[in-house]
This record gives sequence, structure tokens and C-alpha cells, in this order.
Amino acid sequence: MLMIRSLLTAVAASALLVGAAQAQDVKIAEALRDKALTDRLAWDITEDLTTNIGPRLVGSPGMERAKDWGVARFKALGFTNIKVDQFAKPSWTRGEESAELVAPYPMKLSIVGLGRTIPTPAEGVEAEVALFTTYAEMVAAPASAIKGKIVVITQPMVRAQDGAGYGVAGISRRAGPVEAAKRGAVALLIRSVSTSSSTVPHTGVTTNGADVVTIPAAALGVPEAEQLERLAKKGPLRIKLKLASSLDAGDVAWNISADIKGSEKPDEVIVIGGHLDSWDVGTGAFDDAAGIAITTAAAKLIGELPKHPKRTIRVVMWGSEESGGSSDAFLAANKSNLEKLVLAGESDTGADRIYSLQLPRGSEGHPAMKAAIRTLSPLKIYFDRNPAAHGGADIGGIEGAGVPVVNLNQDASRYFDYHHTADDTLDKVDPIQLAQNVAAWTSFIYLVADSDIDFRALSAAAPAQAGH
Amino acid sequence: MLMIRSLLTAVAASALLVGAAQAQDVKIAEALRDKALTDRLAWDITEDLTTNIGPRLVGSPGMERAKDWGVARFKALGFTNIKVDQFAKPSWTRGEESAELVAPYPMKLSIVGLGRTIPTPAEGVEAEVALFTTYAEMVAAPASAIKGKIVVITQPMVRAQDGAGYGVAGISRRAGPVEAAKRGAVALLIRSVSTSSSTVPHTGVTTNGADVVTIPAAALGVPEAEQLERLAKKGPLRIKLKLASSLDAGDVAWNISADIKGSEKPDEVIVIGGHLDSWDVGTGAFDDAAGIAITTAAAKLIGELPKHPKRTIRVVMWGSEESGGSSDAFLAANKSNLEKLVLAGESDTGADRIYSLQLPRGSEGHPAMKAAIRTLSPLKIYFDRNPAAHGGADIGGIEGAGVPVVNLNQDASRYFDYHHTADDTLDKVDPIQLAQNVAAWTSFIYLVADSDIDFRALSAAAPAQAGH
Ligand SMILES: [Zn+2]
Ligand SMILES: [Zn+2]
Repeated sequence: MLMIRSLLTAVAASALLVGAAQAQDVKIAEALRDKALTDRLAWDITEDLTTNIGPRLVGSPGMERAKDWGVARFKALGFTNIKVDQFAKPSWTRGEESAELVAPYPMKLSIVGLGRTIPTPAEGVEAEVALFTTYAEMVAAPASAIKGKIVVITQPMVRAQDGAGYGVAGISRRAGPVEAAKRGAVALLIRSVSTSSSTVPHTGVTTNGADVVTIPAAALGVPEAEQLERLAKKGPLRIKLKLASSLDAGDVAWNISADIKGSEKPDEVIVIGGHLDSWDVGTGAFDDAAGIAITTAAAKLIGELPKHPKRTIRVVMWGSEESGGSSDAFLAANKSNLEKLVLAGESDTGADRIYSLQLPRGSEGHPAMKAAIRTLSPLKIYFDRNPAAHGGADIGGIEGAGVPVVNLNQDASRYFDYHHTADDTLDKVDPIQLAQNVAAWTSFIYLVADSDIDFRALSAAAPAQAGH
Repeated sequence: MLMIRSLLTAVAASALLVGAAQAQDVKIAEALRDKALTDRLAWDITEDLTTNIGPRLVGSPGMERAKDWGVARFKALGFTNIKVDQFAKPSWTRGEESAELVAPYPMKLSIVGLGRTIPTPAEGVEAEVALFTTYAEMVAAPASAIKGKIVVITQPMVRAQDGAGYGVAGISRRAGPVEAAKRGAVALLIRSVSTSSSTVPHTGVTTNGADVVTIPAAALGVPEAEQLERLAKKGPLRIKLKLASSLDAGDVAWNISADIKGSEKPDEVIVIGGHLDSWDVGTGAFDDAAGIAITTAAAKLIGELPKHPKRTIRVVMWGSEESGGSSDAFLAANKSNLEKLVLAGESDTGADRIYSLQLPRGSEGHPAMKAAIRTLSPLKIYFDRNPAAHGGADIGGIEGAGVPVVNLNQDASRYFDYHHTADDTLDKVDPIQLAQNVAAWTSFIYLVADSDIDFRALSAAAPAQAGH
């Protein structure tokens, strides 16, 4: 009760601070929101990047063209302080891949190598299958059941609005190769980390940790995984797998950033963005051309105002999200001015509608955030009292370094149908929902940028359980 | 008016014939219907055929195993008069296939060779693209726009409950290769004849006519077709295509049939079935393990009655629907007793619910058909007054030879998402809807088999426009 009373008191006090400037800001935020709903820029950016650049794997010519595209786009849209921060990033390139069921009968399998997998020998690997329906079952199995075999893990992924199924099922991909190798497996095939029922397999990086993957690892289409599961109940299976790939240890990637410069406190910076790199399969429309488009279009709309908001808005096109590294590179490049970063946010869950807002702890009573919550409400975005936590790999590192973050949570119900597949293409993007995203980002970010809100101070002052 | 009055008189007269035997038949048909709704056999057959046999392309070892499976299944289920009618059927076998966009930038394309396409040279064909958004546009183009190019046709397919979009869009596949070749194209790529937005491409036979396809022809995934359409607006495209395949002119296929023998007029035969062959991609669950399962399970349920109905029910597992030939072979083998075929019906549009019934012209007033219409009504199947026409390639030939046909029309809304693709797999089959199919077939066929209805006579007596 004490905590609740003190919170209410703080809220009431804040409410009194709402003045004329604040009312004007709300008006502008509402106008930005409504304009964004019919603005075409985010669609144009998504269409352009996916169509004219195409796939953008780190280390590929496509990514290099994407870098030039990003700089040109920022210029054409009137952003200033355009920077290309190059950093070292070993790259991995896929070669020919194939797999087939050999016994009990021959059948082609739809597979895709996991990012950073090692190749098989040129002639492939063929072995009996040790099939497990969950990752936990594989870890619990005696090595004798695995040694010399191709491990198949068929753990399914649960569809959820907040994408919660991804972390659970993703363990097969993240830890599976290393753990299967420890037990003597000659290769690993996982059911794609997917909510779809498509044979189109889902790639994704194997591990970002210190562990090195020492066996070839690939993902299977969902129906094939289910077929193997049924067949394994009836007798032994054999699979032949061929994976080719190459590594370039000396490669580079780039974080590209540009500003809508603040009119009064330009050194106070709000960082938003998406990632420019994508997997080599598909054209990375949901992941993450849409995030690039949403945040760039939101900043551009704010930049068109007769007067820029007080603080600077910086859009970062992160250069290596899928393979990791963007975040560390940004931190290294911005070590000295991290305390000037007011807030960070990332759009990286596709292009479907935003359904909730999560704020840095303790900030929801501030007039600017009360205004934000009200401004987002007509977009059917509710305020989730759980404090924001990093929503993507890129800003996770910044958050770890103490920068407050915001989450504008996108509906992930469809996201993992297409994520990391050849089916992540423009046709999946719904322009109406895309525009709702821009409307939310532009109005929210404007309110932060034109306010004096100090998220760090509010968070430090907030009772530990506030917001829960 | 005269016609309507004479029809009504005939209906009234027929109604008077409904006697005790008819009432008993309705009771049995209703009991069969209700039993089928909870019967597992059709699911078991679909699961078994797709899992333990897998893909079943004509000429493949899978199809040979399927033939043995069919015979064994019929035996185990107590069918009699099991026959394997072998016929000559040249077979086509797919080899390695790939395609990539070469300019304006390199991108892998998801393709599948059309059935019976010729191969490319081993090194592939690479050429500039002549892109047309409809088949008609390609046909209307001057040869100079096509000569030496790879023709791409991106005509989309419309989703429709009755599958009507298939015939319209399918022209690209059926006639496209021959017409593009006539104009000097070096290869043809069509947008998959598909209602989905998946990159999984849809195969299917190029042409069944006398024309010979002389250029390599393949289908593209839908997002790739749309990507090429967008790119073609901005500049020239180049594509490289590799297709390998082989032909065996001396191969064979088999129609397999078996009976539930009639108790009083065993020489009067009702022919039902599905096709056992499938494409080599996927496991042919919708197309057409489900049709095999539905009709076999329906006949088996009738066979379990204490007394078989008067007439014989013959289930045919057609052996070459996808590449054609089953129907001709059946006609050749049954030339002498075609007039004994009372009615023919085929289940070949997947496993989703039946929504309408179409009868041979002039038969709807017969007491057995009135009973059938009433019996199907609780399954949410309406009577469509348009007379039945053949619903599949296999019974089309029989119908042409004067055998009356019935249509139990399945909802095709989802069918062309998966048809002829690697995604035509067991997980797409909904057991509840599958059981509804069995319930319809078993009750309908029982009513025909235990009646004296003479569809030929009713059709001959019916005014030309009756039923419309
Ligand atoms: Zn992403
Ligand atoms: Zn079929």
C-alpha cells in the first residue's frame, strides 16, 4: 500500500506539470501519428530494399550494395551526420546443400544449413538417425544412442503473439549442434524453428557463444520433420546430408547511422533503428527491411516538422544482427557518449501491428509518457506495465551498458511462419499494419525527443517493484 | 412451364414408389453416415500411404511399392475380385534442378520442373527474360520480343471454393511451353499455379495433348514471380536455369481395383476411387492419398454390413492420373461391360469438406436420390441442380463413354495452396473434414447400390434443360 500511495502521489504531481508546451507536443504527436497512417514512405523503403537490393547476408555483395543504399537513402531523405562505422566481422557463405532420406525409402528432404555450420565432406555424411522429439530428450540420452549418428530433433515451436515460443524451441538451434557434437553425433538436423506447416526450412545462426560448432547442422522443413518422427516409430532411418559453405575471417560489416538533429539539445540522442543485414534466403522483408523502413520513415516524418524537437533522433541501420556484432561495434564506437543516449528502441519483429508499449522502469507517470500512452491508444496499443527489456540483439548491448530502452511490441503471430526463410518476402508485408507501426514510432519518439524526460533518473527513483 | 409440369409429375410419381425397402435403406444410409463420422480408417489409410510409401510418381520405385500396398490393403480389408491392370505408360524422372537470377543481381530462385519437361543442357541455359503478366499477353507478343529469351509468365491464380481459378491460370502450364517454343523462347518459367504466397513451387504436367514440349519448362515460387515482375519494370533481367530429367518410354503403370460384391445384382457396378500415383515432391496427401482413403473407407464400411447392397461397389486406385493414361487403360480393359457401370465417382480434390452434390441429369426426382439429398443435408452438403460433370481426369474418359457420373464437390479453398508441391503432406489433412467426406460417400453410394436407379434412362427421359 505504501508503495502504491507514493506512486500515485508522484503521478498526481507529474500531472500538474502538464502545461502549454506539453499540450502543443501532444497536438503535434497526434498529427504525426495521423499523417503516418496514410504515408507511403515505409512501404516504399521496404519495397525498394527487398526488390532492388534483395538478400543481404553479412559478407555478401548484396550487403555491400545495401550499405551504399542506406547511405543514399539517408541523404535523399535529408538526414544529417550520416556515418558508416565499419567493424571486423567474419562472414559465412552458403554453398550447395541437399539432404535425402535413404532408408526406409529414398525421399528428398527440404533443408537449409544453419548459419555458421561447418560443411560436410564433399561426398556428404550418411548415417543412421537418432531422433529425439525434444532437445531435453537429446541431452538426457546416453552418448551410446548418439555416437556416429545423425541426430534429428523434432521439437515444435508454439505460436504466440509475443513470440515467446521462439526462445523455447530455439534451443535446438542455438545449443543443439554443440551438445550433439559433444555426444559424438556426426551431424544435426533440427525441425525448423517455425510456427508454419511449410516445407520451407528456417535458417538462423547456430551459436553466438564461445562454443564452436564442430558438426554440420541444418534445419528441416516442418512436414519432413513430422514425417521422420512418424517413420522413426516404425524402424531405423538413414539420412544423407551434404552441406557446403565457406568462411572469411577477415571480413567487415557496417553500422550506418544518421540524424534528425535536435533543435535545442542536439547532444541528447534517441537511438532507433532496425537491421540492414538479412539471411541469404528470401529478401528479408519482415526481418528486417520493415524495421529499417518503419524507423527511418518515423524519423523522416519528424524531420519534416517546421521545427525539429529538442533532442536528436538517430536512426541506426544495424549491420550485423543475424550473425551478431553490431551491438558491440556500436558500443565500442560510442563509449564516450553513452550517457548522452536518452533512450534506445529497435523494430525487429516484422511488419505486423504494434499491440503494446513497454517503458523504462518508473517513467510511466511522467507527463510525456502519459501523453504517449494516450497518443498510442487509438492505434490499439495498450500500455504494458512490465518495464521494457531489450527487444532485439542490437540494442541489447546498449541496454546492458545502461541506456534505457523502449519496446513497441509487434504482433509476432505470423512472424515465425516466415522468419529466416525464402518466404520472408515483400508480399507478406501488410501496408496498413506497416503504417500503424510508423504512426506509433513517430508519435512516441517525437514526445520523447521534445521532452526533458530523464529515464535514468526516473528509473533510479522508482521503487523496485513499481510497474508490476 | 410444360417442362416444369412434366418434371413435377414425374417427381410425384416417383415419390409414391417410396416403400418399406426404401425407408430401410435410408435408415442404413444414415447409420453408415453417422458411423463414418467417427471412423478412423480413412485417416489410417492416408497416414499409412503418405508415411510408409511416400512419394509415388509413375515409374518410380515408390509407385511400385504403392501398387503392392494397394493390393495388400484391399486384401486386408476384405475386398474381393482384386485386380491389377497393367498398362503401358512412359515415365518421366526428375533430376537436379536449379535456377538463379543473374542480373540485376544474383539471387537463387525456387523452381520445380514441370512434369515431362525436357532437360536443359548440363551447363544450363542463361538468357535475358521476356516477362509477361498473363498468358494472353505472351501469345499476343511479337516473336521478336521472345526469340532467344527465357519467357516468364507471372499470371496469378484466384482462390475459389470450387477451384475455378485452376483452369484459368493453368493455361500457362498446359499451353505455355508449346506456345513459347513456337515463338522461339529458349525456356519457360511460369508463376506456380498456386493460391498460396509460398516459395514452394508447384509442378504438374505440361501438356497431355499431341503437342510435344521442346523447351525446358519450370514453375517459380510465388514470391519470386512477384519479385521478377517488380524488377522487370526497372530494367532487363537475366536468368540461368538448369533442369535434368530422363524418360523411360517402355515403362508401365497399374490400375488396381477391388469389389464389395453386390448381393442381388453383382454385375451392376458402381465405380468409385481416387488416384494412387502422386507427384515426386511431397507425399501426395491431398493429391490423392485422401481420395484413395475416402473411397476405400466408404466401400469398406458398406462391406461390413450384415448384407451387402444389391449392386457391386468397385473401388479403383487409379495408377496414372498425374501423367494421364489411367482412364484410357480402364476403358480398354472394360470395353465389353461399360453398360454395366451404373455410376462413377472420383474423390480428387483433397481432404477438406464436401459442400455440394451434383447428380446425373434427370435423376434428382428418383426416391433414392431424394433420400440421398436428405441424408447428406446434415453433413452440410447442398444439392446443386447443375448436372454432374466429370470431376477428375480418371473418370472423365468413362463419362465420355456414356457412364453417368456423380460429383461430391470438396471445398477447394486450400487445395491449390499445396497441390503438386513438397507441402502436400499429411499435416494438411484435417481428420474431421476427412471423416465428413467418408460419411458422404458411404451413405450416398450405399443408396445407389441398394436401389434400382437407372441413371442412363432418367437422363435420356429428362428434358434437356431439366435441373437448370
Ligand atoms: Zn531480425
Ligand atoms: Zn489428383
